[in-house]
Amino acid sequence: MLYSGERIDEIGFSDLKLIQKPEEFCYGVDAVILADFAARKTANRIVDLGTGTGIIPLILSHKTKAESIYGIEYQQESWQRAVRNAALNGLSERLHFVQANVAEFDGLCHWADAVTANPPYMAGQCGLKNQNEAKTIARHETVGSLEDFVMCASRILKDRGDFYLVHRPARLVDLFSACRSWKLEPKEMRLVAPQKGETPNLVLLHCVKNGGIELKFLENLYIYQEKGVYSNEIQQIYERFT
Amino acid sequence: MLYSGERIDEIGFSDLKLIQKPEEFCYGVDAVILADFAARKTANRIVDLGTGTGIIPLILSHKTKAESIYGIEYQQESWQRAVRNAALNGLSERLHFVQANVAEFDGLCHWADAVTANPPYMAGQCGLKNQNEAKTIARHETVGSLEDFVMCASRILKDRGDFYLVHRPARLVDLFSACRSWKLEPKEMRLVAPQKGETPNLVLLHCVKNGGIELKFLENLYIYQEKGVYSNEIQQIYERFT
Repeated sequence: MLYSGERIDEIGFSDLKLIQKPEEFCYGVDAVILADFAARKTANRIVDLGTGTGIIPLILSHKTKAESIYGIEYQQESWQRAVRNAALNGLSERLHFVQANVAEFDGLCHWADAVTANPPYMAGQCGLKNQNEAKTIARHETVGSLEDFVMCASRILKDRGDFYLVHRPARLVDLFSACRSWKLEPKEMRLVAPQKGETPNLVLLHCVKNGGIELKFLENLYIYQEKGVYSNEIQQIYERFT
Repeated sequence: MLYSGERIDEIGFSDLKLIQKPEEFCYGVDAVILADFAARKTANRIVDLGTGTGIIPLILSHKTKAESIYGIEYQQESWQRAVRNAALNGLSERLHFVQANVAEFDGLCHWADAVTANPPYMAGQCGLKNQNEAKTIARHETVGSLEDFVMCASRILKDRGDFYLVHRPARLVDLFSACRSWKLEPKEMRLVAPQKGETPNLVLLHCVKNGGIELKFLENLYIYQEKGVYSNEIQQIYERFT
């Protein structure tokens, strides 16, 4: 079940395990907090865009009672790893993975109650490209742009469906602008900072398809209480269901 | 110099005084923090949109070396009060007030280094209207919509000019969307909360005309350190130049 360079990690939720290939890309706390942010509300059908090795669908399978969770991934190796991750955890009935580019995917139209996305943070032409192609695609908008992710989410969601995403605060104007233009109205926003007193470096956003105009600010989320020690809230996010 | 219902207040900067009519509308801390936010950067020509009785131009005359500051105000009585406020403080050479609707004003084209605005917070059709017409216009988008303020700022500003505004966080998507569509790119944002641990109820935004895409989050501003006691930063904002 394992190929060269891969390893199996415990992900800290129940006894769920994840195959990943460290030299390419490993999931971060972003995926964990996004899954938790999305799990607050009941949803029966969920789709995760740019799912990588399927970490978000795996966590959601644990944190929610969703019957069916799809993950869309463009990179063939990551997609295959996601399929094996579902099998490894005995979840092939609930988790389904599709190999597709979010810019072109036209399935699951108006199907989902909720869509999650942890898109590449770097804009197409910005920042240093990682030499490793898989890492580059995971981190830069080389395949799917932010707008492609938002467009895809809008197509897949039912009316009033929920869209959850995590991104960089520096891209907030792009986020709002893309979401509104695809009828995904931002309703809740939560800034995430490494520690209290530090500048936020992530933002969690909850949009509602065809939702009314009014944005609610949730209190900041802090990842660490001191260097190397997770905050109580992050510890709860990991332990709540274990 | 005073009409019925008016009073003269000390505004806390040097010996500046302000005529206002309490039953209509009195300025709040929003105007003070906006003026301070705008005063961080040098600007020779400044325009304040929806200036009311001219509180922001008055504070800016004290906090900056700007040669010429204009205030645009639609309501005749407020505009007259602003004109008298300039005279009362011996500032009629530096402060100029124009009676106009921001939706229609077409003067001062590409004239300003900086524009400030503390627009009405309530969207046109939302919220209870105040029975008093002057208060209604000051608080609701009955005359100038948010988009009108942004459009007017964009016309007045030089290329790379600075636009500073204060608004409600709930309108952040509207703000970003209007600013970007009028080429005023949001560059800095600062959330303002009554006290630490409380939800932000104001947002300060700094946009740059034709600026590049990247939003910087400044640390939160807190108004009070405890009930009724201003925070050190607000005390500094008041005392810094006195």
